[in-house]
Amino acid sequence: MNILLDAGSGGRASMRLIHELFFKYFENDILVKMDDAAYLEMKSPLAMSTDSYTVSPLFFRGGNIGTLAVHGTVNDVSMLGARPRYLSCGFIIEEGFSYEELEEIVKSMAESAKEAGVKIVTGDTKVVTKGACDKIFINTTGIGEIIPPRSKFGSPSGANAKAGDVILISGTMGDHGLTVMAERENLSFVSDVQSDSASLNHMIERLMLEVGEVHVLRDPTRGGVATTLNEIAGQSKVRCVLFEENLPVRENVRSGASILGIDPLYLANEGKLLCFVPKEEADKALAIMKEDKNGKEAALIGEVAELPEGKNGQVVLQTKMGGMRLLNMLEGAVLPRIC
Amino acid sequence: MNILLDAGSGGRASMRLIHELFFKYFENDILVKMDDAAYLEMKSPLAMSTDSYTVSPLFFRGGNIGTLAVHGTVNDVSMLGARPRYLSCGFIIEEGFSYEELEEIVKSMAESAKEAGVKIVTGDTKVVTKGACDKIFINTTGIGEIIPPRSKFGSPSGANAKAGDVILISGTMGDHGLTVMAERENLSFVSDVQSDSASLNHMIERLMLEVGEVHVLRDPTRGGVATTLNEIAGQSKVRCVLFEENLPVRENVRSGASILGIDPLYLANEGKLLCFVPKEEADKALAIMKEDKNGKEAALIGEVAELPEGKNGQVVLQTKMGGMRLLNMLEGAVLPRIC
Repeated sequence: MNILLDAGSGGRASMRLIHELFFKYFENDILVKMDDAAYLEMKSPLAMSTDSYTVSPLFFRGGNIGTLAVHGTVNDVSMLGARPRYLSCGFIIEEGFSYEELEEIVKSMAESAKEAGVKIVTGDTKVVTKGACDKIFINTTGIGEIIPPRSKFGSPSGANAKAGDVILISGTMGDHGLTVMAERENLSFVSDVQSDSASLNHMIERLMLEVGEVHVLRDPTRGGVATTLNEIAGQSKVRCVLFEENLPVRENVRSGASILGIDPLYLANEGKLLCFVPKEEADKALAIMKEDKNGKEAALIGEVAELPEGKNGQVVLQTKMGGMRLLNMLEGAVLPRIC
Repeated sequence: MNILLDAGSGGRASMRLIHELFFKYFENDILVKMDDAAYLEMKSPLAMSTDSYTVSPLFFRGGNIGTLAVHGTVNDVSMLGARPRYLSCGFIIEEGFSYEELEEIVKSMAESAKEAGVKIVTGDTKVVTKGACDKIFINTTGIGEIIPPRSKFGSPSGANAKAGDVILISGTMGDHGLTVMAERENLSFVSDVQSDSASLNHMIERLMLEVGEVHVLRDPTRGGVATTLNEIAGQSKVRCVLFEENLPVRENVRSGASILGIDPLYLANEGKLLCFVPKEEADKALAIMKEDKNGKEAALIGEVAELPEGKNGQVVLQTKMGGMRLLNMLEGAVLPRIC
């Protein structure tokens, strides 16, 4: 069965799709009210974040566009030190798209939302003529409640990195990026990789509640760890020093990336976070990460130093040989439609 | 100048687009923090709504995809009797899209947001390869603060229509739908029509504060007035009776629609609302609408009656000749990509 243009018309065919598919899987007391907006009771202050997902292929090892759309936005909201509560969901579907694939996507979104403890409370479906979009795009926008920060600098922010902080990562780098690349291009020399796509909000909630000073939380998605650290270094006017020998990368990701000539530091991750805390909090934060099913390979990968004069933010890699190499922000695109 | 794939990579090219375009026009203290999520102080309860805009053509008389994306979501949030405060904005852009057109869209979004009194606080940009989307799609998601309702039934809802209510519309029907249709198909016999696209939140705020009982607010977009009333009739289990002679339609819309064989009751509106109030509140509500620049042609167009036994919600038109005609929900699509 295929999705017809009528299903995006706002009329009876739209209603059928909403009732038979979206309500069936997303059902909750707020969504089913069917008003123009969802009525929500929340505690202020809030965190709000949005992302449109255009990943190709739609299904890949470790997830699909739907799980990604839930995990990605849940994580972005969480990175402000917040407890994500509600998601909106906007579908843009190409006429003729498979109903069965849409159902699989919607079903896995519902499962991902349940696992993260968030509700999908309002949505929108547009169906565009054949050729006007490539299969399906999904926007999710999330809102959450800020967890009262224990840090004297307030909620975590890219602007709060301090000289003396250590840089932690919750696991291996590049799994998502290499997986999507390998599946799209049918790269036979890349084996057994799978996306790390996962919601990190439960891990973050523990970090916020149990660690005294969480300065920065950010998920290194597009552009990878190197680009994300450059953003943070620029916002905080600091120098980030990474220890090459501590960087966690799966062996198959390392070898696959190496054949492609890509540094895993620039590959996208969808279930990892970077966390900056004062050195004395490092053990506690690492322990919390490692106790979480998505943080088993967490590692301390670097530290924050004062910025050399005249610079605007800098990231350097201390190599295994003891040399120093400047890591710039990604300039162009390693790969479009990675998320 | 054209938008390149790099601009959606999350790296330096993305940063340039964000700084040189989005920050320039949308600038506000929340957006420029550049964290994964926006930090918002708000009063609960909240209203949240999302819409993806895929309108074609992108520019039409009376607006463009950007103004529509602001007006449409501002209105959806407002329809819950809320004061919209913040919007997120997700762009999906086709590689090669004109930078100048994007700038025009972004600039007019900023103007529309300013007029409505909302801030665009968080965003996302994806650039997809040529042919993977038709020029540009925009998702906006809005949140607002519920205005404490004066009605004993609480905030306005499609489920709150009561027998004895009157049905008001804030102006003429079909202007947006016919305009987009005429521009897309180059219909020369349709002249001087223009979209009614506008934010209605200021009008709604006055209705909420000054009218004792506002039972239903809803904007008749896709599917038009007839489809929207069918939704409400179904949610509230009532019968809506429309008076044909009271229905406000511009003469050029009426004649253009007539040549096309389309009933303006099924044409999309983007700057109109339907409002259900008890009969004794009708004059006050109509006066408030007419004092607003977007409500000059407001009219009382019908009333709510008990549902005949065995029915699930019904909308009928009392014709000028005194007959009764059943108005069904739109079945298929009058026109895809109308918003």
